[in-house]
Amino acid sequence: MMWDDRPVSRFGIVEIEDLPEDLRERLAPIVSRTGFTPNIFRALGRRPAQLRAFLDYHDALMDSDDGLSKAERELVVVATSGANRCLYCVVAHGAILRIRSKEPRLADEVATNPHGCELQPRQRAIVDLALALCREPELFGETDLAAARQAGLTDDEIWDIGSITALFAASNRLADLFALEPNAEFYTLGR
Amino acid sequence: MMWDDRPVSRFGIVEIEDLPEDLRERLAPIVSRTGFTPNIFRALGRRPAQLRAFLDYHDALMDSDDGLSKAERELVVVATSGANRCLYCVVAHGAILRIRSKEPRLADEVATNPHGCELQPRQRAIVDLALALCREPELFGETDLAAARQAGLTDDEIWDIGSITALFAASNRLADLFALEPNAEFYTLGR
Amino acid sequence: MMWDDRPVSRFGIVEIEDLPEDLRERLAPIVSRTGFTPNIFRALGRRPAQLRAFLDYHDALMDSDDGLSKAERELVVVATSGANRCLYCVVAHGAILRIRSKEPRLADEVATNPHGCELQPRQRAIVDLALALCREPELFGETDLAAARQAGLTDDEIWDIGSITALFAASNRLADLFALEPNAEFYTLGR
Amino acid sequence: MMWDDRPVSRFGIVEIEDLPEDLRERLAPIVSRTGFTPNIFRALGRRPAQLRAFLDYHDALMDSDDGLSKAERELVVVATSGANRCLYCVVAHGAILRIRSKEPRLADEVATNPHGCELQPRQRAIVDLALALCREPELFGETDLAAARQAGLTDDEIWDIGSITALFAASNRLADLFALEPNAEFYTLGR
Amino acid sequence: MMWDDRPVSRFGIVEIEDLPEDLRERLAPIVSRTGFTPNIFRALGRRPAQLRAFLDYHDALMDSDDGLSKAERELVVVATSGANRCLYCVVAHGAILRIRSKEPRLADEVATNPHGCELQPRQRAIVDLALALCREPELFGETDLAAARQAGLTDDEIWDIGSITALFAASNRLADLFALEPNAEFYTLGR
Amino acid sequence: MMWDDRPVSRFGIVEIEDLPEDLRERLAPIVSRTGFTPNIFRALGRRPAQLRAFLDYHDALMDSDDGLSKAERELVVVATSGANRCLYCVVAHGAILRIRSKEPRLADEVATNPHGCELQPRQRAIVDLALALCREPELFGETDLAAARQAGLTDDEIWDIGSITALFAASNRLADLFALEPNAEFYTLGR
Repeated sequence: MMWDDRPVSRFGIVEIEDLPEDLRERLAPIVSRTGFTPNIFRALGRRPAQLRAFLDYHDALMDSDDGLSKAERELVVVATSGANRCLYCVVAHGAILRIRSKEPRLADEVATNPHGCELQPRQRAIVDLALALCREPELFGETDLAAARQAGLTDDEIWDIGSITALFAASNRLADLFALEPNAEFYTLGR
Repeated sequence: MMWDDRPVSRFGIVEIEDLPEDLRERLAPIVSRTGFTPNIFRALGRRPAQLRAFLDYHDALMDSDDGLSKAERELVVVATSGANRCLYCVVAHGAILRIRSKEPRLADEVATNPHGCELQPRQRAIVDLALALCREPELFGETDLAAARQAGLTDDEIWDIGSITALFAASNRLADLFALEPNAEFYTLGR
Repeated sequence: MMWDDRPVSRFGIVEIEDLPEDLRERLAPIVSRTGFTPNIFRALGRRPAQLRAFLDYHDALMDSDDGLSKAERELVVVATSGANRCLYCVVAHGAILRIRSKEPRLADEVATNPHGCELQPRQRAIVDLALALCREPELFGETDLAAARQAGLTDDEIWDIGSITALFAASNRLADLFALEPNAEFYTLGR
Repeated sequence: MMWDDRPVSRFGIVEIEDLPEDLRERLAPIVSRTGFTPNIFRALGRRPAQLRAFLDYHDALMDSDDGLSKAERELVVVATSGANRCLYCVVAHGAILRIRSKEPRLADEVATNPHGCELQPRQRAIVDLALALCREPELFGETDLAAARQAGLTDDEIWDIGSITALFAASNRLADLFALEPNAEFYTLGR
Repeated sequence: MMWDDRPVSRFGIVEIEDLPEDLRERLAPIVSRTGFTPNIFRALGRRPAQLRAFLDYHDALMDSDDGLSKAERELVVVATSGANRCLYCVVAHGAILRIRSKEPRLADEVATNPHGCELQPRQRAIVDLALALCREPELFGETDLAAARQAGLTDDEIWDIGSITALFAASNRLADLFALEPNAEFYTLGR
Repeated sequence: MMWDDRPVSRFGIVEIEDLPEDLRERLAPIVSRTGFTPNIFRALGRRPAQLRAFLDYHDALMDSDDGLSKAERELVVVATSGANRCLYCVVAHGAILRIRSKEPRLADEVATNPHGCELQPRQRAIVDLALALCREPELFGETDLAAARQAGLTDDEIWDIGSITALFAASNRLADLFALEPNAEFYTLGR
């Protein structure tokens, strides 16, 4: 099927203007700044309470430069979304990572092979901790924490890396559930 | 280490009475009804904004008998938490499933082997859909949806099953991140 | 299907009183002490020679406090049966482990996540050795033995841990072959 | 290390003549017929009660042409031992399969790739059932049984295939536990 | 490490002008047409005989529009390189696929999730056949061939898809062996 | 199907005498020395350009005693072909390894369990490096190289081990694609 004929979500969408007022007002500046409406808002808008809680959780973890920089937070997202092979999150957050890190190749490298790509030591420690919790969380334990601490990550940073990994474990699965189509704009942003 | 010496969470806890007022008021009736404070509240209370968003997302998906019954929602939680081998969620939601389903053996069966345990056809379709998204979400697709629809699940039910699976993909990883200790009471509730 | 309508074994059963005399006499005190007839005896009773050899092998490994305590032997059984997701063995031997260890939560913890659950150092060494041989025996080797010896396990204890893991590799598969239903009593014994 | 310097078993051996009388008398004709003492007897002889029970279980399943032929029983052993990459069982039972099937290439084919090797339809059904229970027994279920029955296998044959798979799940792990060295003679027997 | 400081290959490189004459003459027009020297030539140039044979094998399979179009041949490369998480091949052949298919998003979709991405039926059949041989070739068999034929693929097309998958099984591993750095130009070509 | 009725390749064969003259002249001495025509030549002969390039790549890596001995090169082939469960390569190169190493049991040991078989330290380092690149090349990295260097392998030897692993990643898949039947003679050569 050609891209233009593909549905945004398997379950249909709700446009921003049809959302409850608090969500309209909250999303308007994001849409204005981005230049388009990220499709996750349209898809999750079918259940406003889910969208609202998702945004709250997202903002609590991603809108901060305290400890982890915003670029490092996006690095966690791209690494775990790459490990999970989630198209929407790799493409959308790959764009955000390019913008935030100002390194146009980093997102493709991390998403293609988060285990083996070449990173600076702090980045590698961040990604390794995320990967340890991402696909086989039942094996996560003290060994992973010790390596993170050894690399200089604080407990608050470890909490954030783990929590972002957890949040995108959910997001990746929502995108797969919806067969969520990335906006075309994301593919080239920040390259 | 003996149970009584184990920390509730690797990152420390915040007691309910030390949470912001809205969270105190929201959790008080749950604690009162349950008879004890589920440890997830204490552990996540370290970050009130995360706890608040988590509760909102949880309630949007779990507090409903529309389409899926509450017992069926807990069935999804126990199946995916069992697949992920998450101790806290298996023990805590196993207790809730026993209570909601009034079937004292169901939770142990589903958590031990969600793939192979014997279930009624509708239950099996629910669990199979959840498992398809749980561990290898990159393989989720039309085949899984067709099987769910063939078994009579509606699109709203499919949305809910997938969204609950996604939410507990996050919860399981938070519990592993925290090394979250289940309250002793959960082990025997509803048996 | 409701529990009471489920067959004990996919291949039918033979009651104790219909077994050859030596097996009747051997099993009678176990049934009397337990208060009910564990379903494995009924299912395997269809082939008395197999049942007899299985009991002999079981008793040679499990009825001893020499080196490994009886509780530690059951710990191996529950860890490997949990790793293999075998409902019958998890439920039946989980009950025995609760009784022998006098720790009512240990069996649920170990069966749910034998890799990550919190254990005392000697218990962890026992479980790690069992897990090394349980699912990918082709990778078992000197590294696993060295870790076991480093933790203080003797060669006789290592032999026993490995042999019990091997025996329950067989038992788990027999239970799955039979779709063996755990006796309802096992679910609550020792809690 | 050169072959001649390698120990037969990591835990030492007991020669046949040092075993209890019943085992000596039982093994003597096998050794005489084979022309050498299979090393599994020497290694397991360290615990006569285990050796005795193992032989009893083995003979109850392998010494019969009722339903499954003896060659078909060895086919199950070689397929599951190949899937488990167990050197001793592949080499020793590969030799027996060559002798019993009178097909000198069959054992190497089945051990190297039990999933994909070319077999006659009844052989393929036997091997597929064994493989379904061999590595991921938690996924074994009605689908596997239906395929076996569709191929004409009786319930007694299914019982035997599953039970032999279970027995060698144990044997493979014992051989790995012992680092059991195959007798040199097995490599060329029946070629 | 910053990109500009990274070595092209872990084993050093040989520039085109230092290659034997036949290779210089063969590669010059490719370099001229591409506008830069793809790093695989530099890395493999350390062993001219390997480079020569690799180019011969590559050209025998990739420089043809007979049966499979050139875009379809690149689709196989990107799908299998994505499945293998090979950075160099995903980035370099992703660029070629964008150019040959004139679909700027196709390569990112296929490389990120070759199993689940949305494709036209003939593309899906091509990718499914490639994936069947890519990661677990021991499971490849008649079922995969039947699906390919059912989708209309001829035996010559099946041969080509399988052979390209095999060639890039090698290429991916060479790139990983060399830690081969993709040329920066490939990241944006054809977007 | 009986062996004698099996096709050599799923896609038909071309006999040596029907190949282009350069290939006839090149293969004649190999066939003469071997005493029979290895089936890979017949199967790949359907595409002479592929056969020619394959032979060139093969000879560039395998016909040398510089650094790695020829027996060590075959050891890499048998280890990776065993890991990939490729019947043709295990049987054909198992024979060559027996001849080159003069150790009649080595090939069966390595092919059956390349991870766990007992080897001399240099052999183990060679096999470990090959296995690190064989099945999950995305995890290959500095740790594997450091272990190889620690064992005394030079960079040229590491290049060769990795390149042979890559070549046979291709060969194994071609054999599976063709359902390539090993010549009967290979099964007993060198025993």
